[in-house]
Amino acid sequence: MINVRYSFEEIAAIVSPVKIVGTTNCVVTGIKSLSEAASSDLSFLGNGKYREQLEATRASIVLIGEDIDLQPRKNQAFMVCKNPSIALGLLCGNIEQKCLPKKYAHVHGSAIVAASAKLGRDVYVGPHTVVEDDTEIGDGVTLDASCYVGYGVTIGNGSKLHVGAKVMPFCVVGKNVILHSGVIIGSDGFGYETANGVHEKMPQIGNVIVEDDVEIGANTTIDRARFSSTRIGTGTKIDNLVQIGHNVVIGKHCLIVAQVGIAGSTTIGNHVVIGGQSGTVGHIHIGDNAMIAGQTGITSSCKPGSFLRGSPAMPYGEANKFFVCRRRLPELISRVKAIEDKLEM
Amino acid sequence: MINVRYSFEEIAAIVSPVKIVGTTNCVVTGIKSLSEAASSDLSFLGNGKYREQLEATRASIVLIGEDIDLQPRKNQAFMVCKNPSIALGLLCGNIEQKCLPKKYAHVHGSAIVAASAKLGRDVYVGPHTVVEDDTEIGDGVTLDASCYVGYGVTIGNGSKLHVGAKVMPFCVVGKNVILHSGVIIGSDGFGYETANGVHEKMPQIGNVIVEDDVEIGANTTIDRARFSSTRIGTGTKIDNLVQIGHNVVIGKHCLIVAQVGIAGSTTIGNHVVIGGQSGTVGHIHIGDNAMIAGQTGITSSCKPGSFLRGSPAMPYGEANKFFVCRRRLPELISRVKAIEDKLEM
Amino acid sequence: MINVRYSFEEIAAIVSPVKIVGTTNCVVTGIKSLSEAASSDLSFLGNGKYREQLEATRASIVLIGEDIDLQPRKNQAFMVCKNPSIALGLLCGNIEQKCLPKKYAHVHGSAIVAASAKLGRDVYVGPHTVVEDDTEIGDGVTLDASCYVGYGVTIGNGSKLHVGAKVMPFCVVGKNVILHSGVIIGSDGFGYETANGVHEKMPQIGNVIVEDDVEIGANTTIDRARFSSTRIGTGTKIDNLVQIGHNVVIGKHCLIVAQVGIAGSTTIGNHVVIGGQSGTVGHIHIGDNAMIAGQTGITSSCKPGSFLRGSPAMPYGEANKFFVCRRRLPELISRVKAIEDKLEM
Repeated sequence: MINVRYSFEEIAAIVSPVKIVGTTNCVVTGIKSLSEAASSDLSFLGNGKYREQLEATRASIVLIGEDIDLQPRKNQAFMVCKNPSIALGLLCGNIEQKCLPKKYAHVHGSAIVAASAKLGRDVYVGPHTVVEDDTEIGDGVTLDASCYVGYGVTIGNGSKLHVGAKVMPFCVVGKNVILHSGVIIGSDGFGYETANGVHEKMPQIGNVIVEDDVEIGANTTIDRARFSSTRIGTGTKIDNLVQIGHNVVIGKHCLIVAQVGIAGSTTIGNHVVIGGQSGTVGHIHIGDNAMIAGQTGITSSCKPGSFLRGSPAMPYGEANKFFVCRRRLPELISRVKAIEDKLEM
Repeated sequence: MINVRYSFEEIAAIVSPVKIVGTTNCVVTGIKSLSEAASSDLSFLGNGKYREQLEATRASIVLIGEDIDLQPRKNQAFMVCKNPSIALGLLCGNIEQKCLPKKYAHVHGSAIVAASAKLGRDVYVGPHTVVEDDTEIGDGVTLDASCYVGYGVTIGNGSKLHVGAKVMPFCVVGKNVILHSGVIIGSDGFGYETANGVHEKMPQIGNVIVEDDVEIGANTTIDRARFSSTRIGTGTKIDNLVQIGHNVVIGKHCLIVAQVGIAGSTTIGNHVVIGGQSGTVGHIHIGDNAMIAGQTGITSSCKPGSFLRGSPAMPYGEANKFFVCRRRLPELISRVKAIEDKLEM
Repeated sequence: MINVRYSFEEIAAIVSPVKIVGTTNCVVTGIKSLSEAASSDLSFLGNGKYREQLEATRASIVLIGEDIDLQPRKNQAFMVCKNPSIALGLLCGNIEQKCLPKKYAHVHGSAIVAASAKLGRDVYVGPHTVVEDDTEIGDGVTLDASCYVGYGVTIGNGSKLHVGAKVMPFCVVGKNVILHSGVIIGSDGFGYETANGVHEKMPQIGNVIVEDDVEIGANTTIDRARFSSTRIGTGTKIDNLVQIGHNVVIGKHCLIVAQVGIAGSTTIGNHVVIGGQSGTVGHIHIGDNAMIAGQTGITSSCKPGSFLRGSPAMPYGEANKFFVCRRRLPELISRVKAIEDKLEM
């Protein structure tokens, strides 16, 4: 674990609380959940569900919201924040800056960088990373160990590829993009023509365009378009082990949770949220601001603002009603039988 | 993106249309969907669903089927093809041949190839790839960057391993096989004996045999058999992030879509199609030509030609009826209550 | 495949049968399933389902349980074992020891090991593996080709990282842990604060702690905690392509089957079994000894010993009843209509 050491005053300076109730002379050397924290820890109440744990916590400093009126104990301070989760983020960001080792900009001796590759300023190319010909790597880019940047790829300023991330030929990665370990951008789409039961591979010559500020989780795969581009819009965040098919277009500022699968040629609007393990068929459109619960199966296009659940999907409220009612189905069958008996049907 | 440049005549020569309606002097520099295409693009109508877009498209050349009777506009040509999708495939294949950089056959200086490895003619071994002892690599094989070929592995002529594909010890890969990035062939099966709640690992000493003409998608994992072989039949195509358990046997010319999971010792016939995110339990058999819809859960063996949907699976038609009827369940409960009230039950 | 060669006497010495019925002079050169075996093979009956195949098998030696009273044919031996599956495991373990090439302890010349890394005795560091600063690698550890051990990581004695396994900074791996190919320990959790529709990344500065005797399957991803630790308890076995979110705590001796997803901050007790492709929402608790069927969706906390199925989950028996009854729903709607007609409702 990271070694941290913050005084009460240092933390107050970082999180800028609206108000502080109580004080403590404990030095903070860790961050823990309310129930796990010792007096050397800071904690926070970010989810109302854990409110009860606040009374019992041994943390010496707790970040809380403005709606909490509890009093701290002796030698304990509550720092009241507009948004305790963001306040914690500020502290964690500070720890990240201060405590994590920085990689100074250089090309490791074991990396293979093609002569025609154009590297910007302050680029880190880690051990065993491969950068092929006709690539452009922007300023401040980090290519961690064992990454692959294929022929003709461009990567925008400030982007970070974690260990073993791979960008296949001709793909485009925007600015401030984060690709986590094992991500594969630009694998072939799953496209065949079947004749007499034999599947003939259709060439997949398009690419993937990842716009700015996108984050893509570990071991996620995004297929290149059959032609033209598979596209991930600005600010969209994709979790681990997600599959994005060829020619999919995802809009801006979406959240795609782990293990989701989006089949080929489906288009997704802006600000869409898709829960874990959900899937869509191909060639449909999901409207802006749609919310899709986990494990949903989306089999047809849906309008902006849709809220769906179930496999296959139903409107959220209807799905919930069905999920409650389904438990009564066995009993219902008996009751109908009883009615029929009474009516001698 | 790939730079392409094709005249009307060059395209006609490649796709060999049955008939051409109209002509154009535009040079094609890209392939786009009907709605996105500009006059410098070629497009195609491969899915009846997009027919309306044909009238409005700005593409200067469109590949269409014989059933379309629309007239092109001025300076626009429709090339009528028996199968517009295959015609497009011919063009894309030509682009792939002409425009993608070739890797000339050689062993990169940073690759580690064991002395006892036998390499065929025209083999490419990319940077940082590792080829262990007692391996045989066929003619024309490409092992892209950072691949791994374990002890005792054989790889047939013409196969291609994309960046970071891994074949673990003793596995056998046939001819003209494509393994995409991050594929793992021959990880240990998930096999334990549990005594007093503790899981004892059972050694997994079998292998995986991948027959000819198989394609396996990015980050897919195929476990080695406990003993004997896990087997993927000739011509079968497997998409991304699929899990194949130990001792599974998949027949010939199957299509296994993304994120499917096949549990251990299950056997699958020939020409089976399994939709995305479906799963099977172990130790069952799926008959030839079965069709499994997406997100299906197969819990028992099924006959040749079965068409299944739902979790757990039902015959397709029955599943569809249930999926429609389930929305009426809450109302049905009320109706039964009303009947009971009337009958004073 | 591995070349094996065992006499009747050698096998008897390894598996220590309770009793032997019959004998054979055949030499065993392979292990096959009952139906595939030839006279040069050993087989076993581990699953009652395959009992019928025992009569027909051509295997010269078969490991069977004490409950089987069948007589072998001529030149065939049945070795009666308390647990034929464990007996087979003993044989396979012997084959593994004798026949698989050993990697002698050394650091491959192409590996990059930081000066401050502390390596124990008998450590193997494979080609192109990277070990960063301030790491501690225990005695007898194997880091196969292309692995990554990040800054500040510790790995306990006897652990094995297969090809391309990655442990990100500050994570802790216990003793006798097996990480299969492509495993990623310590990718960032999926955590954002959303303001005006834009998702702001929250730093993820915690780590992952993998306790002793854990095995983690190929391409599985385990996210680091936002702060504190994501934890996998002693003896827990995780299959391929599983996703474990940030701050998840999994107890001891659990089995998590392939493609399961556990959302952030969920805690799981000891001896829990979760079937393939199941998922849980975040911030819930799954009690000790719970059994979760495949493709289940767990949306709320469940008690010790729960047995759940369905999406969303129901008690196992109730789920099974519903799954049978759902097929009668269309018919039930007709019957209710008929009743209403009769009652002129």
